[in-house]
Amino acid sequence: MLYIIGLGLGEQDISLRALEIARKADRIYLENYTSPFLGSLKKLQKIIGKKILLADRDLVEINTDEILQKAKKQRVVFFVVGDAFSATTHVDLVLRAKEQKIKTEILHNASILTAVAESGLSLYKFGKIASIPFLVKGWLVDTPYDILKENKNAHTLFLLDLRPEEKMFMTSKQAIEFLLEVEKRRGGRLFSEETVCVICCALGTKKQKILYGKAKDLVKKTLRAFPQVLIIPGKLHFVEKEFLETFKI
Amino acid sequence: MLYIIGLGLGEQDISLRALEIARKADRIYLENYTSPFLGSLKKLQKIIGKKILLADRDLVEINTDEILQKAKKQRVVFFVVGDAFSATTHVDLVLRAKEQKIKTEILHNASILTAVAESGLSLYKFGKIASIPFLVKGWLVDTPYDILKENKNAHTLFLLDLRPEEKMFMTSKQAIEFLLEVEKRRGGRLFSEETVCVICCALGTKKQKILYGKAKDLVKKTLRAFPQVLIIPGKLHFVEKEFLETFKI
Repeated sequence: MLYIIGLGLGEQDISLRALEIARKADRIYLENYTSPFLGSLKKLQKIIGKKILLADRDLVEINTDEILQKAKKQRVVFFVVGDAFSATTHVDLVLRAKEQKIKTEILHNASILTAVAESGLSLYKFGKIASIPFLVKGWLVDTPYDILKENKNAHTLFLLDLRPEEKMFMTSKQAIEFLLEVEKRRGGRLFSEETVCVICCALGTKKQKILYGKAKDLVKKTLRAFPQVLIIPGKLHFVEKEFLETFKI
Repeated sequence: MLYIIGLGLGEQDISLRALEIARKADRIYLENYTSPFLGSLKKLQKIIGKKILLADRDLVEINTDEILQKAKKQRVVFFVVGDAFSATTHVDLVLRAKEQKIKTEILHNASILTAVAESGLSLYKFGKIASIPFLVKGWLVDTPYDILKENKNAHTLFLLDLRPEEKMFMTSKQAIEFLLEVEKRRGGRLFSEETVCVICCALGTKKQKILYGKAKDLVKKTLRAFPQVLIIPGKLHFVEKEFLETFKI
């Protein structure tokens, strides 16, 4: 049996049901590379009363069979930060388990994808989600810009790259510079220093911070809470506008 | 102090942190009209050790001040099914609290908006979300169709109307008939009986069911688990396709 369990965003977002399952588990992994666990691993282990094994990219994406083999005979819990299916790699894991006739159960939890509603922007009005990767020299990545274009008057959420194991997190400043760079090259008049944006830092945690303003003013802010996301709002309803104003810099 | 706390989808999705806050609260409301609480209220009250007051539409949208007045002096918990900000009305409540300088804290939890990932469809590729209302005779509602059109090759999630207090839930069959009706009138060639759709019932609960197939075949299925949502997939990645196939009828 394989349980994919979302841990949510904050330190104690784990649910009662998740706790119950984890306490009976034979083996517990915590996937820690697509999104960082912001709480204390020690504390979590104490609450559950069991050791938690950190699962790195190699284990999850290359040695997947190690996890699946265990799940054939034992109760295996696979903790994920945020919601259970936030990253493609977790969907993949379940698909492989299904192929091998391993029973799976998914437990959902808070996700950055809905926590962005704290900005006051309606979740119903977001378009496709874009990911901005760390720039590799000589490598042009236009996808985020293309998605912004495609989303038209829908809000666009940009998830920013991170490498928790190396403590590397993209800043919203880098994300804005990324978009300005693509704009310069493409000239689609989609983004400029005057574009009004929203930045959310460490959503769902005690360090949470939301800022609203023009790109040129936002890049001047030093923000030390991570992960960060950037939103370019589309057409605004007046209630959305009113809420956003409470975060104006 | 006003806490808006998401209860998630399943019976025991409440988080440890939410439990801790609720146990110290002076007053606890459960908003029960935008989305139904599928667990046992009695059980929840027992776990918390406190009485929970059901908040109907009138209390939340008209007599909002009653809640806010209490929150000025006491610790008030406002439970919401799903995530805390799934409905506009909860965002409104926080906005009003802010205006009155009442401290607020939001606790996120599982939402139908991310639980739809269990279908295998990538959350990154959903466009705007549409709501299909119960049809009032002589009233034409084209918005869901317009959103489907606007979303182009993005996936479109349709949330179906519900009135938990009257135990009325729109079925996916009704939703499909709704779209066929609009198609007939508009003739935009966006939707037909041949259109491939996904239906998700009672996501995140033990009664969960997912079906994938053509509209004409899906309408023949009798599905008794609620709430239900309808998804019209856009352009599919092969992994999404492979996962969907596991739900083929």
